[in-house]
Amino acid sequence: MVRWLRYQHDGESGFGQLDGQSITVFEGNMFGEPVSSGQTIPLDAVTLDLPCRPSKLIALWNNFHAMAEKQGLDRPQSPLFFIKPPNTYRASGQDVVIPDGVGRLLFEGELGIVVGKAGRDLTAETAASHIFGYTCLNDVTALDILKADQSFAQWTRSKGLDGFGPFGPVIATELDSDALTVRVRVNGRERQSYPLADMIFKPAEVVAMVSQGMTLEPGDLVACGTSNGAGPIPKGATVEVEIEGIGVLANRFA
Amino acid sequence: MVRWLRYQHDGESGFGQLDGQSITVFEGNMFGEPVSSGQTIPLDAVTLDLPCRPSKLIALWNNFHAMAEKQGLDRPQSPLFFIKPPNTYRASGQDVVIPDGVGRLLFEGELGIVVGKAGRDLTAETAASHIFGYTCLNDVTALDILKADQSFAQWTRSKGLDGFGPFGPVIATELDSDALTVRVRVNGRERQSYPLADMIFKPAEVVAMVSQGMTLEPGDLVACGTSNGAGPIPKGATVEVEIEGIGVLANRFA
Repeated sequence: MVRWLRYQHDGESGFGQLDGQSITVFEGNMFGEPVSSGQTIPLDAVTLDLPCRPSKLIALWNNFHAMAEKQGLDRPQSPLFFIKPPNTYRASGQDVVIPDGVGRLLFEGELGIVVGKAGRDLTAETAASHIFGYTCLNDVTALDILKADQSFAQWTRSKGLDGFGPFGPVIATELDSDALTVRVRVNGRERQSYPLADMIFKPAEVVAMVSQGMTLEPGDLVACGTSNGAGPIPKGATVEVEIEGIGVLANRFA
Repeated sequence: MVRWLRYQHDGESGFGQLDGQSITVFEGNMFGEPVSSGQTIPLDAVTLDLPCRPSKLIALWNNFHAMAEKQGLDRPQSPLFFIKPPNTYRASGQDVVIPDGVGRLLFEGELGIVVGKAGRDLTAETAASHIFGYTCLNDVTALDILKADQSFAQWTRSKGLDGFGPFGPVIATELDSDALTVRVRVNGRERQSYPLADMIFKPAEVVAMVSQGMTLEPGDLVACGTSNGAGPIPKGATVEVEIEGIGVLANRFA
């Protein structure tokens, strides 16, 4: 397993592999054939950046058996998703400034799939080779906006405000999602914990389904949806999303 | 009024102002303080490119009195929108290859607002100065996908497939939208014609409403929604969206 990250250091952007508390610096294209520079930088000397900058962040709804059962939802026949625009992106460690007047905020801890190469109309078999790795994501939602209009569920606006899509801290390759658990802590107390083995559509199926008629680009991010336990974000709280092998995505909601 | 466009010429990208059939080439940032190079190129010597590359394309629903009346919809209390991802973008003149198995396609001719400078939480007064200009947009929709799932209206997927968001051919500045009509022709026959004066929220109000809690970036595009008359796109048809002062956005659906 390799853990890729991007960082800011001495006013410059860079990327590399994280080994313990040390970053091995790489050059070139993370999704191409990056080359090690031989240089290392201590993790505590850098500011974490987004591990990639997706041209689109596709976020699934209704993708866990336990949540579908609790909410009385059928298994989807096709991928049900919305898009979180680039103004939602925040790196781990960055504050999210809560916009005025948005009402209650919910956290939703999720697994994010990072696409490594361009592709469309993939099968589950071909899709597997398009997955570069995995990251943690917090699909923040303004609940009152989502349900404010009876005629039009506002998936995009309620989940598309500034800072509502933090992800990171790294992209970890070669994970077996079936063996992993998503845990969310709010101010250090565990609030959500669910097994990724409960996913209705597994990562390769998700990528295949989403790619039907829609080209996925290197660095695109697909959030796998959340399960039971999503809950409120109090003002000033720090929300951590942890997945073993990837690490902890931490953001303070100021 | 100025008409800005981007183009490909001799293998290079460029941008400039269109005067009749001649392009005056500019350098720098179209949304900053671009400078004329003094050079001109005939329009027929270039391939049209997207006039800008939005970090997000925000598309409104239910923004015309006539359509709201016909469909029995209330005036929205807040902006109702979805996002069309970058894989939908196509320049005027580019073919749209219809994905397999998507069923009936609809055209929706629309006015697009191009944002010129970054801003958030704007008022209608401050928003006016953030509008760089206007373009034509075809908000293509796969109707069967939109309504395939009872539990989740698929605004994003039905309108987010490859090539489903052509816009252009230029960005025209200083238009008075209240004086303009959106016309759509399919294979040369007029199929949609509606006055922009019928908009529920005018461009500056639209930009102000959408910017609440959401930073708009230079080059971002906000589609104002369509009115009555949206209709089917037969296979092989050429769809033209025309707005006076902007020109004709033309794409063949192959």
